Amino acid sequence: MDDICKKFGLNVKKFREHKGISQEKLAEETGLHRTYISAVERGVRSISLNNIQKISIALEIEIHKLFMFGDEDTHEKLD
Amino acid sequence: MDDICKKFGLNVKKFREHKGISQEKLAEETGLHRTYISAVERGVRSISLNNIQKISIALEIEIHKLFMFGDEDTHEKLD
Repeated sequence: MDDICKKFGLNVKKFREHKGISQEKLAEETGLHRTYISAVERGVRSISLNNIQKISIALEIEIHKLFMFGDEDTHEKLD
Repeated sequence: MDDICKKFGLNVKKFREHKGISQEKLAEETGLHRTYISAVERGVRSISLNNIQKISIALEIEIHKLFMFGDEDTHEKLD
């Protein structure tokens, strides 16, 4: 699986933990299965755009922030 | 199809035209089919993360910029 899925998955995990919710809770809020959330966080699923949006809404984070990997020229930070 | 696919598709089109390449050329550079590129730009396909990355590489644009829709609090601009 591509590196992009790994990096995206780490961001989902980071923002989910920042929000203080479990994978189960994120699954419930997105309508996705917990094992799917787990696979996304581990970077072993190439998630589709519709599901990326569901996660961004549940985590209350703008989608583009799920693609900020800390190795880019940016001033944006996780607050 | 979700609004997110429409907004993403418009961004792909914008960056592709900014780079001055055709859908055919983008298809060739990504290894995706031209009809698939067309469907993504029209927002009728929920593209997967692996394919989002292929497009970002071909357009030489960071992935997160494909998710900046001009309706967010951001200082980033298309140069």
